Amino acid sequence: MEPGRYKSKSPGSAGLGLFVLLCSSLLLNALFFAHHFVWASPPVPRLGDDAAGGGLSWALQAAREAEAVAAVDCSGHGSVFLDGIVGDGEDGRPGCECNHCFAGPDCSVRTPNCTADAESGNPLFLEPYWMRHAAASAVVFSGWHRMSYATTGGGLQSVELERHIRRLHRAVGNAAVDDKHLVFATGSTQLSNALVYALSPEGNAVSSSPPASVVATAPYYAAYKMQVDMFDAREYRWAGTTATWDKNTSRNSTGDFIEFVTSPNNPDTALRKPVLGGSSAIVDHAYYWPHFSHIPEPADEDVMLFSASKLSGHAGSRFGWALIRDENVATRAAQYIKTSTLGGSRETQLRILKLVKVILSNLHGAEDIFAFGYDVMRSRWHRLNAVVSRSTRISLQKIPPGYCTYLKRIKEPSPAYAWVKCEWEEDRDCSEMLLEAGIISRSGVSNEAGSRYTRVGLLKTEDDFDVLLERVTDLVNAEKHGQARSSAM
Amino acid sequence: MEPGRYKSKSPGSAGLGLFVLLCSSLLLNALFFAHHFVWASPPVPRLGDDAAGGGLSWALQAAREAEAVAAVDCSGHGSVFLDGIVGDGEDGRPGCECNHCFAGPDCSVRTPNCTADAESGNPLFLEPYWMRHAAASAVVFSGWHRMSYATTGGGLQSVELERHIRRLHRAVGNAAVDDKHLVFATGSTQLSNALVYALSPEGNAVSSSPPASVVATAPYYAAYKMQVDMFDAREYRWAGTTATWDKNTSRNSTGDFIEFVTSPNNPDTALRKPVLGGSSAIVDHAYYWPHFSHIPEPADEDVMLFSASKLSGHAGSRFGWALIRDENVATRAAQYIKTSTLGGSRETQLRILKLVKVILSNLHGAEDIFAFGYDVMRSRWHRLNAVVSRSTRISLQKIPPGYCTYLKRIKEPSPAYAWVKCEWEEDRDCSEMLLEAGIISRSGVSNEAGSRYTRVGLLKTEDDFDVLLERVTDLVNAEKHGQARSSAM
Repeated sequence: MEPGRYKSKSPGSAGLGLFVLLCSSLLLNALFFAHHFVWASPPVPRLGDDAAGGGLSWALQAAREAEAVAAVDCSGHGSVFLDGIVGDGEDGRPGCECNHCFAGPDCSVRTPNCTADAESGNPLFLEPYWMRHAAASAVVFSGWHRMSYATTGGGLQSVELERHIRRLHRAVGNAAVDDKHLVFATGSTQLSNALVYALSPEGNAVSSSPPASVVATAPYYAAYKMQVDMFDAREYRWAGTTATWDKNTSRNSTGDFIEFVTSPNNPDTALRKPVLGGSSAIVDHAYYWPHFSHIPEPADEDVMLFSASKLSGHAGSRFGWALIRDENVATRAAQYIKTSTLGGSRETQLRILKLVKVILSNLHGAEDIFAFGYDVMRSRWHRLNAVVSRSTRISLQKIPPGYCTYLKRIKEPSPAYAWVKCEWEEDRDCSEMLLEAGIISRSGVSNEAGSRYTRVGLLKTEDDFDVLLERVTDLVNAEKHGQARSSAM
Repeated sequence: MEPGRYKSKSPGSAGLGLFVLLCSSLLLNALFFAHHFVWASPPVPRLGDDAAGGGLSWALQAAREAEAVAAVDCSGHGSVFLDGIVGDGEDGRPGCECNHCFAGPDCSVRTPNCTADAESGNPLFLEPYWMRHAAASAVVFSGWHRMSYATTGGGLQSVELERHIRRLHRAVGNAAVDDKHLVFATGSTQLSNALVYALSPEGNAVSSSPPASVVATAPYYAAYKMQVDMFDAREYRWAGTTATWDKNTSRNSTGDFIEFVTSPNNPDTALRKPVLGGSSAIVDHAYYWPHFSHIPEPADEDVMLFSASKLSGHAGSRFGWALIRDENVATRAAQYIKTSTLGGSRETQLRILKLVKVILSNLHGAEDIFAFGYDVMRSRWHRLNAVVSRSTRISLQKIPPGYCTYLKRIKEPSPAYAWVKCEWEEDRDCSEMLLEAGIISRSGVSNEAGSRYTRVGLLKTEDDFDVLLERVTDLVNAEKHGQARSSAM
């Protein structure tokens, strides 16, 4: 279609010629009309007429790269990432990274007899939420974004992110923030050691006072002990479980205690309070969000920690924060972070800010992240229970329902982990028994809970959960058909 | 203009009516034609017909936000950032963050009698480079980018970034990488403690062997001592300067030594080698890039560290890496990073990958970052020297020229810091004297070099350097006019 040749024709006499010309012109009108108002529909914004007055310039190339990578088809069983491996001699684009138990260039091939990997607490159950909120959650980094050591006001922490985290806690009602200092860290991992340092006796390197004793109640999150043992400073040492020290009258003579409390607990998901009176407690509330737990009231301990990993699912961002009542403790924790890493990545702070904004703008609406996460996790727990309830061999922790002040109703259980107990006498090593049944779990030995328990992670991808449920079903079915001892042992 | 009403008209008889209709239709065609082919020119890419086959969708909003923020005018004396503070009752957009000595909503007001802040090593001299490479260096993060703890292959480090860092070292020729392991960290700050840990005697917590002695040659980077003192583990302790131990025959009986070597040195910018024979050395090559130093040969020590801060200027990203020959040392360093923070932010890894790609693609070209950085820093050093050479009161370190294998010529000095010595008897506290002259510097006391020396940072913004040069010029002029003792003391 060349519009030009119609125009080059001069009108002839009235009559047929004129009529043909009119028809042609009207047809052309119709075509232009259709092209302009119909083909372009729905009216996507044109580069060049956006509200800012100028079209996209420097951000265009990066936006195209990101969308091109995101558009690669991985059959719903994998993802492509901008920093994925680029193979030699290919098109220079990274390939699909397949979910566990899937393979092939487009992740369409299911691996036969695949072992379910439920060892970690990788929070990928929220990935679909962020895919649904792609436009709102995307962030563009200019090459010159926050090159400086200092952020707004000269500190290491984004002031806007601080504000939004406080807003989030107020809106969710899971922590009292008004009388707390806020300290950011590279994940709650870095934070837990910073807090141990901050609560240890000051200036101990030169004094001769005994080191603080760091303790937790079994079953506890093993990373606490691992970290304290590795970073064994002169101010603190790992001192075992609270059971050793509870009601122990010699406690006061052995120096200060620092008690790790995880609530909901990792691995057994129970809500917990400090056990040792009169000691400092670091209360890890990483899982105290409505997708995992009911929220009876705002937590208000002196030292609390939270993480992006279990809030939004961004474990790879390594972002955690502490709420600390005492100014001196907060200053010491911040000093630790500064000396350890000069603060966390500023890229992460901007990205988390964007994610928290999306979460805040959807609270209590149809796209509430907690409602979404709760639905996924409740459904998984329900399906797992339906299978395990037929078993005499393995059992799961009992979780009482509770009224959630955020959801404004009694909440069904939706835990991050199944805390599996092996009930049969001969299954002394529960993790080993599950492994033989094709399920990788984390043995309760590392939690000082003994080998009869093992932790099974429920918060990975739907693919991971499906494979897990298959393996558990096989295990329970084998037991029913009397094949347990031969096939699973 | 409503195209619809032309179409609703049915043609009447031949003659005037038909002719009017035809003219209208032709006019309409012409308008459509002009709109389609002329108004839209120059042909900006339309959403919907880019090369990838699909138009921008989810990345558009974020791209617009980033460009709108970047377009705010801060008079060339400040920047706006996406996570800058949003004031109450404003348009919801963050405002300008002004360079030191500038103020006002658009940073156009020069602060009178402003003190030059040359205390830090904030590498903002490279900010203009990234503004010039805006399109190539921008990165778009989807909301679901790398949520997992694990990256490609299950580790914590981007495989593509590892490859590109190795490529960069090979291309620049500043480090031998082929027989080295690569360990990422949250800045070289985290790395330096990880390496002290990795080189300390293993399993010392249970054994009774003496802790490793950590030492450095004065003047040294004070953060090493600060960190070792704060994280005073049972495996290592700060043991002062190498001068105490060099040729000290009792050295072997006091346990292992770990020597920090910084080359080029911070603060005095001299190239250095380890001093204590037979001990482990951590060689900090953060400044061993052609913008600061000539590169006589690829560094090839057993344990070396580098950082994005002094390569690309991205101090806020907190990204450093170590090159380690021995596998066991690398494994222990990686274990430290894992236990401390579960690896660094994955956002940072993607962004640094993009930046390294831009650097690589411009090496030896007109837009070489090292040529750019060298020009800036050489010019600053030249201007500062021209002023200080007129002074009897202060002097700067002498830097011998050297052949740079990367630039393929003799390189003039372009150091990151001026190591200022106060020559007059009465100026015992050089940092204090400079402060009275309106210059904030970092006293040599922290480097165990004594108060007669002080470090002046040269790598901040051009605004910072301009103010610094003004203050130094005032100081030297006052001295020339015989006012020094009264005005500057």
